[in-house]
Amino acid sequence: MAKVNDNYLKLPGSYLFSTIGKKVAAYSQAHPERKIIRLGIGDVTQPLAPAIITALHKAVDEMADAATFKGYAPDLGYEFLRSAIAENDYKGRGCDIRADEIFISDGAKCDSANIQEIFSTDNKIAVCDPVYPVYVDSNVMAGRTGTWDAAAGTWSDVIYMPCTQENDFAPELPDETPDLIYLCFPNNPTGSTITKDQLQIWVDYANQVGAVIIYDAAYEAYISEEDVPHSIYECEGARTCAIELRSFSKNAGFTGVRLGFTVVPKELKAGDTYLHPLWARRHGTKYNGAPYIVQRAGEAVYSPEGKAQLKKQVAYYMKNANAIYDGLSDMGYTVSGGVNAPYIWLKTPEGMTSWEFFDYLLEKANVVGTPGAGFGPSGEGYFRLTAFGNYENTMEALERIRMM
Amino acid sequence: MAKVNDNYLKLPGSYLFSTIGKKVAAYSQAHPERKIIRLGIGDVTQPLAPAIITALHKAVDEMADAATFKGYAPDLGYEFLRSAIAENDYKGRGCDIRADEIFISDGAKCDSANIQEIFSTDNKIAVCDPVYPVYVDSNVMAGRTGTWDAAAGTWSDVIYMPCTQENDFAPELPDETPDLIYLCFPNNPTGSTITKDQLQIWVDYANQVGAVIIYDAAYEAYISEEDVPHSIYECEGARTCAIELRSFSKNAGFTGVRLGFTVVPKELKAGDTYLHPLWARRHGTKYNGAPYIVQRAGEAVYSPEGKAQLKKQVAYYMKNANAIYDGLSDMGYTVSGGVNAPYIWLKTPEGMTSWEFFDYLLEKANVVGTPGAGFGPSGEGYFRLTAFGNYENTMEALERIRMM
Repeated sequence: MAKVNDNYLKLPGSYLFSTIGKKVAAYSQAHPERKIIRLGIGDVTQPLAPAIITALHKAVDEMADAATFKGYAPDLGYEFLRSAIAENDYKGRGCDIRADEIFISDGAKCDSANIQEIFSTDNKIAVCDPVYPVYVDSNVMAGRTGTWDAAAGTWSDVIYMPCTQENDFAPELPDETPDLIYLCFPNNPTGSTITKDQLQIWVDYANQVGAVIIYDAAYEAYISEEDVPHSIYECEGARTCAIELRSFSKNAGFTGVRLGFTVVPKELKAGDTYLHPLWARRHGTKYNGAPYIVQRAGEAVYSPEGKAQLKKQVAYYMKNANAIYDGLSDMGYTVSGGVNAPYIWLKTPEGMTSWEFFDYLLEKANVVGTPGAGFGPSGEGYFRLTAFGNYENTMEALERIRMM
Repeated sequence: MAKVNDNYLKLPGSYLFSTIGKKVAAYSQAHPERKIIRLGIGDVTQPLAPAIITALHKAVDEMADAATFKGYAPDLGYEFLRSAIAENDYKGRGCDIRADEIFISDGAKCDSANIQEIFSTDNKIAVCDPVYPVYVDSNVMAGRTGTWDAAAGTWSDVIYMPCTQENDFAPELPDETPDLIYLCFPNNPTGSTITKDQLQIWVDYANQVGAVIIYDAAYEAYISEEDVPHSIYECEGARTCAIELRSFSKNAGFTGVRLGFTVVPKELKAGDTYLHPLWARRHGTKYNGAPYIVQRAGEAVYSPEGKAQLKKQVAYYMKNANAIYDGLSDMGYTVSGGVNAPYIWLKTPEGMTSWEFFDYLLEKANVVGTPGAGFGPSGEGYFRLTAFGNYENTMEALERIRMM
């Protein structure tokens, strides 16, 4: 008789953003006349840049002609895109990453969820707390996290690294040695970053204890300060301890287009085993490539026009981030993030949990944010707002919050 | 210290089509002057139909305007596409499948590889032999298949159901009771089919023993005979025992566009647990939706123009199938498939293994096919040719084979 994967049954509630979606839908249905402003899920609102639209149309036309039609993509991605990435994201920043170490995918969410599959189920993971829920949930599903303590909101076999106001939202090296370390900078959800020197400490640590760092750099395009690394491969020794995940969702507005990539350096090992061929095998067996037209859109991100247009798009969102940061500060909220990241992290008003603040904000201001507790126990008492709304809505949301 | 998933290390060689790709690339490099005709991998060659091209351009234009721009798609797919599928693929065939039982994905390969994740690792799988390698390899990676017997070409914990000329390429109910049963009709690689009455026997059996059937109907558009079912839900009782996988790759030429879907009926349980919420949870956590523009392209498949154009496209490939079938029969080969499927399955000439025939065909005719042994031990002595080439190349390939 067929039996299910019991690990799924251990997952408490549903995926954070599904829960929020349901709450908002229920509120909308009850109050159809109210205009809700969504600064919750990290979804972009600006249209695709003209250079990308042109590339998409051109690629669609190629699909209309037998002479230029493209069927299955190469397993690991088209050479034109892998080369553009290697050249611009890595060589351009002094990182030694070659095109054949880059695996094109349909987004960093999938990669961040799937990457754990190539590791043993008895590996112990360490995550920042608060954390992007996918890192933990995908490990729960694989049976790597032990038992759920509902009161604490933690898993028995996960190492949590608290990131709170007290440590400036930067994780400290854990007491217990992990096998896999998930790091995300600029950070989702806190919007914080660490310097290159701070990241070097993690790289040295991982090399010393034989851990693998899974480094999520999905928000690197939002970095504005000099000493913040765009890639973990800016650190010495990262090629022997780190996998890097990247996304086109936030730097190019591809949340509905779907494109990302993962870097697995050829030197990287777990124990005696090289990881590059393992990820290649997973990719080749359980995935079938990103759409040709989408890979051409990705290529356009690196064209001179694309770069110029996207710089403006990022600046547009960062203007929102600044406005939210300054506006909330003015109102007396304790605020962080927003300088090198499109996320603002605020302390909820005294005596209010993060879900209470979620409901309060939805009710009083018709604004949707994300409760910090949804990202982990150390997120309790915090709340995330994103800068991905349009400017007018963002200003209106701030005004409504001011009037609450 | 990080450790890898040892199951990956058990996988022999690389994924079948990667191996073929490498062999062909090496041959091409050694003989750059020879024109190779590829009838190996099941990749299509005809351009996308005009209705689909129009839909893609229109959707791209929507992405260029903030008012119509689309970010993250709904977790399980856009309603417009799920409804079109429910209406056309199911209601139109008398199957009771609702839109909210349909999960949109980036293709049947991924779904067929991922679906095992929601089941316990101690479930025992049964597969046809020969079989699409992804079913088995994804289970190997999950640790469900025991040890590899290189001499036999089999895994110790997999139930193989031989499909050979002797049983007209139709699997028989296994002696040992499986928990999960993978079936694919019209079949890849043999091109064979079973009737609705034959499939009903499998549905009854699965319900009786509590097994779940994973039914891959990726080739249903090629069915030409009346009594061959297009969906397993045409059989009574399938809602309580079957998951169905579908693809847009072959009926609409989406191999490079990437779109598919999986049906999980709400009544379907494994033991006491409903599977629909489990697959929804996996989808929500480890996947982030198919691109908006691609889902609009999928919708166009069901438009009156799309249907008419794709009927012609399928007919085009089936003309190839008929020509290969008849041509090879004339040459004295023993041939099957090709009537309800785009695959021709032939017996290799006496004394030649399927890989020997692969090399022979590549060398003598510069034609690429797929060796039967790559699909399992009962595929030894057989060889697959696909009808997905263009007509002229297919005719030329046949002529070259005739001259060998």
